[in-house]
Amino acid sequence: MTGAEFLVDHLIKLGVTDVFGIPGGVVLDFLYELDRRKEITAHLSFHEQCAGFAASGYAQLTGKLCVAYATKGPGITNLLTPVADAYSDGTPLLIITAHSENVLDKTVRFTGEQELDTVDIFKSVTKYAVRIDSAAAFPFEVKKACNIAFKGRKGPVLIDVLTRVFTENIFDIQTLNNVIKIMPIKSADYIIEKLKASHRPIFLIGDGIHQSRAESKMRELSEKLNIPVISSRCSEDVMPISGMYFGYIGSHGIRYANFILSKADLIIALGNRLAFPLNSDSFKPIYENAEIIRIEYDESEAGRHIPNCKCFIENVQDTLNELSDRSISYIEPNKWIAVCNRLKKELFEADINPPTRILSEAFQSISNDVTIVNDVGNNEFWSSRAYINTGISNRTLYSKCFGALGCSLGKSIGAYYASQSPVLCITGDQGLQLNSQELQFIGMHKLPIAILLLNNNSSGMIRSREKQRYGRFVHTTPNSGYGTPDFKKLAEAYGIEYIKYTTGVFEKIDRPILVEVIIDEEIGLEPNLPRGNRCCELVPELNKTLFDVLDKL
Amino acid sequence: MTGAEFLVDHLIKLGVTDVFGIPGGVVLDFLYELDRRKEITAHLSFHEQCAGFAASGYAQLTGKLCVAYATKGPGITNLLTPVADAYSDGTPLLIITAHSENVLDKTVRFTGEQELDTVDIFKSVTKYAVRIDSAAAFPFEVKKACNIAFKGRKGPVLIDVLTRVFTENIFDIQTLNNVIKIMPIKSADYIIEKLKASHRPIFLIGDGIHQSRAESKMRELSEKLNIPVISSRCSEDVMPISGMYFGYIGSHGIRYANFILSKADLIIALGNRLAFPLNSDSFKPIYENAEIIRIEYDESEAGRHIPNCKCFIENVQDTLNELSDRSISYIEPNKWIAVCNRLKKELFEADINPPTRILSEAFQSISNDVTIVNDVGNNEFWSSRAYINTGISNRTLYSKCFGALGCSLGKSIGAYYASQSPVLCITGDQGLQLNSQELQFIGMHKLPIAILLLNNNSSGMIRSREKQRYGRFVHTTPNSGYGTPDFKKLAEAYGIEYIKYTTGVFEKIDRPILVEVIIDEEIGLEPNLPRGNRCCELVPELNKTLFDVLDKL
Repeated sequence: MTGAEFLVDHLIKLGVTDVFGIPGGVVLDFLYELDRRKEITAHLSFHEQCAGFAASGYAQLTGKLCVAYATKGPGITNLLTPVADAYSDGTPLLIITAHSENVLDKTVRFTGEQELDTVDIFKSVTKYAVRIDSAAAFPFEVKKACNIAFKGRKGPVLIDVLTRVFTENIFDIQTLNNVIKIMPIKSADYIIEKLKASHRPIFLIGDGIHQSRAESKMRELSEKLNIPVISSRCSEDVMPISGMYFGYIGSHGIRYANFILSKADLIIALGNRLAFPLNSDSFKPIYENAEIIRIEYDESEAGRHIPNCKCFIENVQDTLNELSDRSISYIEPNKWIAVCNRLKKELFEADINPPTRILSEAFQSISNDVTIVNDVGNNEFWSSRAYINTGISNRTLYSKCFGALGCSLGKSIGAYYASQSPVLCITGDQGLQLNSQELQFIGMHKLPIAILLLNNNSSGMIRSREKQRYGRFVHTTPNSGYGTPDFKKLAEAYGIEYIKYTTGVFEKIDRPILVEVIIDEEIGLEPNLPRGNRCCELVPELNKTLFDVLDKL
Repeated sequence: MTGAEFLVDHLIKLGVTDVFGIPGGVVLDFLYELDRRKEITAHLSFHEQCAGFAASGYAQLTGKLCVAYATKGPGITNLLTPVADAYSDGTPLLIITAHSENVLDKTVRFTGEQELDTVDIFKSVTKYAVRIDSAAAFPFEVKKACNIAFKGRKGPVLIDVLTRVFTENIFDIQTLNNVIKIMPIKSADYIIEKLKASHRPIFLIGDGIHQSRAESKMRELSEKLNIPVISSRCSEDVMPISGMYFGYIGSHGIRYANFILSKADLIIALGNRLAFPLNSDSFKPIYENAEIIRIEYDESEAGRHIPNCKCFIENVQDTLNELSDRSISYIEPNKWIAVCNRLKKELFEADINPPTRILSEAFQSISNDVTIVNDVGNNEFWSSRAYINTGISNRTLYSKCFGALGCSLGKSIGAYYASQSPVLCITGDQGLQLNSQELQFIGMHKLPIAILLLNNNSSGMIRSREKQRYGRFVHTTPNSGYGTPDFKKLAEAYGIEYIKYTTGVFEKIDRPILVEVIIDEEIGLEPNLPRGNRCCELVPELNKTLFDVLDKL
C-alpha cells in the first residue's frame, strides 16, 4: 500500500466524501489516488483560498472532517486565511500539502524552489501541524492529525508530506486510540442547586451546541424546564422555532434578547465562550448582577477568567443528557416566561430596515433544505436580523470569529456538497469581489447556488465607522476610490444568470443565479450599543415610556 | 507628533510614494494620515493579495521600498503569499498591520476578535517581523524594520502596531545607523589570478545585479574584458542588447547559453545563487570541470556548500567597481568569443514555437518604456524565450523563486505606479483567474496596462507533467474539470476593452486592454532537459551532425 493509498483509505474510513484544491506537481500522486476512488470526489477550485472556504463550509454544515489540499509554495500560503478562519470557528479541516526537499535548511532563505517552513507559518492557526518526511511516520501522523482535528474543541490540522512518501510503501502497524476523552460529569448538581434559588435563569448558548450536535437536546431541555434560551448571533439557528428561544444578544443584538440578558439572575452558558469585553460598562453589570455557570469543552478557553463565574470542563452534550434525566425546577417559571414573552411581543417589530425587509422576504420564500451562507460585513448582520424575524429554521453559516471577508462563495460550494441541497449565499459588493474568481466553479458545475448580492456600492461597515469617527471617507465609497464592476456582465462571463431582485426569485433554487439588490449606502448597522450604555439601551432609542415600562418588568 | 504622522513622515523620507491596501478599522488612522499628505498616495486594492503584489511590482522595478498595509485578521493573512514571494525574490517591502488588544494571550485560541499572532506566522517569510505595543518603541522599530528591509540581501519586513499607537504622541529620540555595512573587498585579486590561467571564463549573473543596481557596470566590464555573460532566466533584462550577453541557462534554457556553460573553465557567479540541483547528472559536470567563484551578498546563502567553489561575501557593485579599475586579461579572448558567437549564430532560431512567435511580435512592437510583467506557468517561459529572440531591452518582472501563480495583475499595478509608464502584463488563463478581482483596480483607474492572455484553456504546466507521468489528466483540461470564463465578458464587466490578438495591438498602450490569444493546449514547455542528460543535451534533440560539431567547438 502506498502512502497516497493509505491516506485516501483513511479519509474514506473517516467518512470524508469531498476534497477541494488545485493540482500542483508535488500533490499529483495524492490527487490521482483520489481520482481513482469512487467513494470520494476531488473538486477543482480556482484560488486555494476558496478551496479552504469550500472545505470549511462543508465541515461547518456536517460537523464532519473536510479536506483542502494545495501544492507547495504559493498554493499552501493561499490557504492561510481559511485555515485561520477554521481555527477561530472550531471547524475540523485537514489541510494537505507536500514538499520535495527532505531536509529543510532553516539557515538559508529557501532550501529549494517554493519550499517553505509550512509548519512554522501555520502552527499558531492550527491545532496540529506536522512535516512528514518518512513513510514510516506517515500512518501514525495522518491518524494523529485527523484525531486532533476532532479532539475537544475542533479545528484545522495540517500535514506537509514529503512528496515521494505518496508513492512509497507504507506499513501501518501503529494504531492510535480513537476515543475522545469524556470528562467526568460534574456540573449537573451545581446547576440544579443554583436553579432552585433562581427567579430568572437563562441558557446562553453558542456554537458549541452545533459542534457537539446537541441542538435537539438543547431545545427539549429548555422547553421541558421552561428556561428561556438566548444565543450568540451566529447560533440563531440552533433552535429558532422553539417558543423558548428569545433571539441573540450583542452590541448589534435583538433588543428583547439584550433585555432578557440584563434581567437574568442566573446565566447558564452552554458552548458559548462569553466573549463580552470584560471591562465594558455595558456588560459589567451582567457579571455583577447574575451568577454565571459555564460549560466549556476547551480547557485553554476555560482558563480565561470571568468574574462571578463557575466553569465546568465538559462536553455540553453530556451536560444536557445528565440534566434531562434529573428533576429540576426554579422559582415561579410562569412569571419569568411571561416577562420574556412580553419583551418579545413589544419589541418584535423593532429594527427592521429595507435590507432586512428584503432578506426576510427572501428567507420566507425558500424551502427548508436551503442552507443560508453569509459573508462578512453589514450584510451578515441584516441577515441575522431577518432570520430572527421570519421564524424559519434553515441552517446558517457564518465566519463567526475571524470575519473572513469574501468567504461566502467558497463556503457555499462546500455547503452544497455537504448537503446536496440548494444554497442561498448572502454577500456584499466588496466581499463578492474578494473571491469572485470562484464564480467559475459555481457556473461551470451549474451548482444550485443563488447568490444574493446586497450592493450598497461601498465598504459599508468601514464607511459607517469613518462617518462616525472622521466625518469623511477614504477608499470606501465611489467618490473616495472604491468601485464595483458591472455585476450583470460579471455573472454572465461565468455563465451565471443575473436577475434584479424580485419577490419569489428564490422559491426554487435549481441553478446558479446572481440576484442583485441595490441598497442605499446610508443604511448602516442598527441597532448598536454606544460605549457606556447598558446592554438594553441600544440606539436608536426606544420611546422613553415604553423603555421604562420594559426596563421595570 | 502622532504615531501615524511619524510613520508617514518616515516613509516619505525614505522616498516611498505609493502604498497599497484595503482599509479596516485598526488601520484607519494610518490611512487617514496617508490621505492627508500630498507626497504619498494610498491605493485601494480589491484583495490584499494583490495589494502585496502591487507593492512588490513597484519595489522590484525601482529597487525602492514599497508598502502594503492590511487590517487585522483575514486582511493580514491574505498578504502571506505576496510576502513569501517577496522574501524569495529579495524584494524590499514594508508590511503594515495593526491589532487592538495590547496583550496577546497565547494560551487561548484567540485573544480577541480577529487577533492573531502575526509575527509568529510571518517570521519565517520576512527578514524582520515585530509586534509594537507602545508609542515609546514605535520610532525605533519603524526605522529598524525599514533598515533591515535593505540591509544585505533585501526582503520584506512586517510591523504589527497596536492601533492606538497611531494616535498617541511619539517622541523620536532614538536614532539608528542607516549605513549599510560594506564588506571589505577581497575577491578582485583572486578573480584576476584565476582569469590569467583561464581560456574560457564566463560571468554567470543573477538578480543580484538588479538588486544592487549594477546593470551598466556589469555590461561595461564584460565588454571591456571580452568575457561572455550568461544569466539566470529572470535576469535576461540586465544587459540584453550587449554583444557579450549570451542568454539564460537552465533546464528550459537557451541552447547556446547551456552550451557555453558546459564549455566554461571558470565561472564567475555575480548576484546568482547557483541554484542548480547539486546532485543532478546534468549539472554535476559543470562543477567538476570548471572552477567557480561566487560573489554573494547574503551570508546565510553563502553558507550553502557548492563543490569546487570559492565564495566571497561582497556587494556585487563593489566587486565590479574594483575590477573596473584593474588591469585584467585571460588567454586568447578572441578564440573563446568566436566559439560563443558561433554557438549563438547556429542556435539562435531554435525553439521558436507559435506562442513565442506571437510574444516576439508583441515585444518588437512595444516602446522602450513599457515594463513587461510576467505571471507563472508555461507563459513565462515562452515570454523569456521571446525576449531573448527580439533583442529588446525592456525591464521584465517575474516571480522568480516563489512561482506565485496569479501575481501578474498585482505586480503590473505596482509597476505602473513605479514607472508611470505603460505595462504589458503576460498571463495565462489559470493565473488570470486567480486574482481576476483586480481587473476592477485596473479598469476603474484606467491604467495603461495591456494584459496579454495566452489562453490554452488548461493548467498547462501541470498538464505537461501529467501527460509525461500518467498519460491522462485530472483537473487540468476542460474534460477533466478545468474551465475558464468568457474573458471578453469578464473584461467588459470591469470596463476593460477586450481585443482578439492582432499584430500591432500593443504599439500604443494608453488604456487598459485585455488581449486574448488562443494557444494550442498541446504546446508545452520546450526545450527541456531530461534527467541525466548533459546540460547542452536539451530535447527536442538537435540534428546529430550539428550537435557533434557544436559539442566539439
